[in-house]
Amino acid sequence: MPNQKQVDADVVIVGAGLSGMIAARAVLAAGLTPVVLEADERVGGRILTEEVMPGLPVELGAQWIGDTHERMFALADELGVETYPQFEDGETSYDLVGAGVLRENEFHARFGDELAELERVLRRLDEMATEVPVDAPWLAPRAAEWDSITAGAWYDAQGLSPVARTLVEICTVGILAVPTAEVSFLHLLFTIQTCGVTSELFAESEGGAQTTRFVGGTSEIPNRLAALIADHIVLRVPVQLIEHSPGGVSVHCRGGLVARGRRVIVAISPTLAGRIMYDPPLSGVRDQLTQRLPNGSAMKAFFVYDEPFWRTDGFNGQLISDVGPARMSNDTCIPGDDHGVILMFLEGEQARTFGRLPEEERRAALTAELVRHYGSKAAHPELYVDGEWSDRQWTRGCYNVNLGPHVWTAYGPALSAPIGVIHWASTDTATYWSAYMEGAVDAGERAAAEVIAALAG
Amino acid sequence: MPNQKQVDADVVIVGAGLSGMIAARAVLAAGLTPVVLEADERVGGRILTEEVMPGLPVELGAQWIGDTHERMFALADELGVETYPQFEDGETSYDLVGAGVLRENEFHARFGDELAELERVLRRLDEMATEVPVDAPWLAPRAAEWDSITAGAWYDAQGLSPVARTLVEICTVGILAVPTAEVSFLHLLFTIQTCGVTSELFAESEGGAQTTRFVGGTSEIPNRLAALIADHIVLRVPVQLIEHSPGGVSVHCRGGLVARGRRVIVAISPTLAGRIMYDPPLSGVRDQLTQRLPNGSAMKAFFVYDEPFWRTDGFNGQLISDVGPARMSNDTCIPGDDHGVILMFLEGEQARTFGRLPEEERRAALTAELVRHYGSKAAHPELYVDGEWSDRQWTRGCYNVNLGPHVWTAYGPALSAPIGVIHWASTDTATYWSAYMEGAVDAGERAAAEVIAALAG
Repeated sequence: MPNQKQVDADVVIVGAGLSGMIAARAVLAAGLTPVVLEADERVGGRILTEEVMPGLPVELGAQWIGDTHERMFALADELGVETYPQFEDGETSYDLVGAGVLRENEFHARFGDELAELERVLRRLDEMATEVPVDAPWLAPRAAEWDSITAGAWYDAQGLSPVARTLVEICTVGILAVPTAEVSFLHLLFTIQTCGVTSELFAESEGGAQTTRFVGGTSEIPNRLAALIADHIVLRVPVQLIEHSPGGVSVHCRGGLVARGRRVIVAISPTLAGRIMYDPPLSGVRDQLTQRLPNGSAMKAFFVYDEPFWRTDGFNGQLISDVGPARMSNDTCIPGDDHGVILMFLEGEQARTFGRLPEEERRAALTAELVRHYGSKAAHPELYVDGEWSDRQWTRGCYNVNLGPHVWTAYGPALSAPIGVIHWASTDTATYWSAYMEGAVDAGERAAAEVIAALAG
Repeated sequence: MPNQKQVDADVVIVGAGLSGMIAARAVLAAGLTPVVLEADERVGGRILTEEVMPGLPVELGAQWIGDTHERMFALADELGVETYPQFEDGETSYDLVGAGVLRENEFHARFGDELAELERVLRRLDEMATEVPVDAPWLAPRAAEWDSITAGAWYDAQGLSPVARTLVEICTVGILAVPTAEVSFLHLLFTIQTCGVTSELFAESEGGAQTTRFVGGTSEIPNRLAALIADHIVLRVPVQLIEHSPGGVSVHCRGGLVARGRRVIVAISPTLAGRIMYDPPLSGVRDQLTQRLPNGSAMKAFFVYDEPFWRTDGFNGQLISDVGPARMSNDTCIPGDDHGVILMFLEGEQARTFGRLPEEERRAALTAELVRHYGSKAAHPELYVDGEWSDRQWTRGCYNVNLGPHVWTAYGPALSAPIGVIHWASTDTATYWSAYMEGAVDAGERAAAEVIAALAG
């Protein structure tokens, strides 16, 4: 699209992440004209593949889909993006509560009772989660009670052994990317319910949210989607102001572009949506909600070796540890490429503290942890690359927003309810796999359906 | 100042609240030229006096100063604004934990042990608060521990009787304007320490933060201050973008005005400061901090009667109750005016719930509570007026920002540290009476001193 000062469309969409582009495609399919305004110089939002060596893409952002992510499987199929299964063969390596490095079979043998105890707590979470309506968590029969405590406080009250408490913290922070002491227990239950059951979320092996990857990298999805609607996307136009009335919207961008339309879909993280100026201003309830939706802190660090030597030793590349900066890792080798690639996750507190160190210090600490688990071969990677999301101006944190105590019950209805001609997308507003790519598609489709129905009416 | 497209100054100041104007005055006194950019059509920010009848001003915003607010006393003196003491004669009326309406002497007789117990807890808070450095709460010896729990959880753990627990919640919410379950215990201790002791904060009678009022209304302070620097204030110019480099700043406003200067002081609530676009973008740490500083919810409701009939019955106009929408009230009559004026406070949960009701319903519920305490004369006010702050576009909540668990320890240093040529003011960044007018002056003076020193260097 040429660099023009005004553009007219039926539907203006803020953000060319997955959610916004899915909405644009649906709008287009309904015979309406969308225009997608993207602040960044690229599409994809929280999806970001970087080719660190020829033929070796690593995922600095969203990476996997799971077996129940039917929208994403359909989308990949439609876009011609092939998938392959996450490598899972071998044992996980543990080092928790001072027990030292233990292979999976040793760990299970030593902590069998504690793991059974944790399993009972997870089943209890699953049962409680079924009482939370995903489209209105504040209507759960025990919403007031569950929203008045943190997930951490609930875990603390279960009388778990140290290893079980540590393990459930690591698994939960692996999803929320903030310590459980910062998140409402109701929000944890909501998150579980949007995904099905805890085993989907926390699964280390079969099933779960991380079973499948995309050939060529996850960015193939947004890139191919963007190619289909290329005439309707404008890059490098940060939105500053949305003027809205029943008659339509004028969306003003830095640089002077004004996009006019009949409706607008704001398809960015709600905390960023709260930074846009609205005229007339939005209600205090909506505004105070967006003051209470902080993004998590997540950092992915990749070590590339000449071969996946840990496989030879019977390891699957996953570690679970409370020692080093990373609490978890994954084997992220690429089929057809000989390199060994280990991804280490820094989430929540670890991303905050180690993410602020000089890269060399962070890398050294992570390397030491890999050496402890996988031996001296881990000491000499060919390449190291990491990336933190809060520094990225148009994202400002990952994986998603987290609601603290009282936010769902006091402000929840304002999260996705349209305000006049303004609609809200982004995975943070999804009711199915919220925070995941599947949720981005869910929310984009829902917002588009709202707009299409309104404009047809 | 004429409506122009560009203005040049030494120091650009964002926000004509008390903090920004104090900074502007200090900058001017140092021989430098300030320009203050105010989004609203008035100065004063969270100070807002409204004359509801001729000669009868009510304070929809900041109202009182306390005996230790030396900067505010000096400022009032300098500006020629007279002060008068808050009316305190008579008894407070209580209705807590189902005890029914009790006069102060009855309440103290019945709950003497519980009040002594509460007193012990407050003394303990005072002791702990002394360990919190007000300019670096994260350096408190027990910062990690205190920042990992909420103020509410700490109160819950003290084994308080129901009446003591209820009373301390009401007093604390009266300051924080959010439930204690949402606020870090470290933040509560910081707040206490910036004010001295809990008796300063919570005092119902002598001393404390609410001893003194301003003749003509609190707005006399910002209005007279604005008159002194009128040539340097531009109204109705919401700031959208701050371009900054070591060489200076260009501050871009909605409507097209660009203010250029050598330094900028952002003198608005940190959550609103986070909504401005910065180029180059600020660090992830600063950004994630501003995602975690929600404003409280506060609403003041005024009932104006033909006379202060409660005084005749020996009441001081203060009620403390867990029954009606308001947890507390005050006699806010004006000397020289015959009307009786009662102010009822809705804070935190009460502001959220009742603030969203139609005014008639809220007024009816508040009236019923006044009648229970002060009899049938309370049923027929001449006038009722209320105001909630989250709906106000350029404030978005009161009285100030509150830090949840982990925010001080993970992000605290970013609250007021300058970033290049950008400096931060507003009472939320103060280290003395933060959240009060006194803190606004403290922060404005501190930011101005930073800038003056930098420009002299």
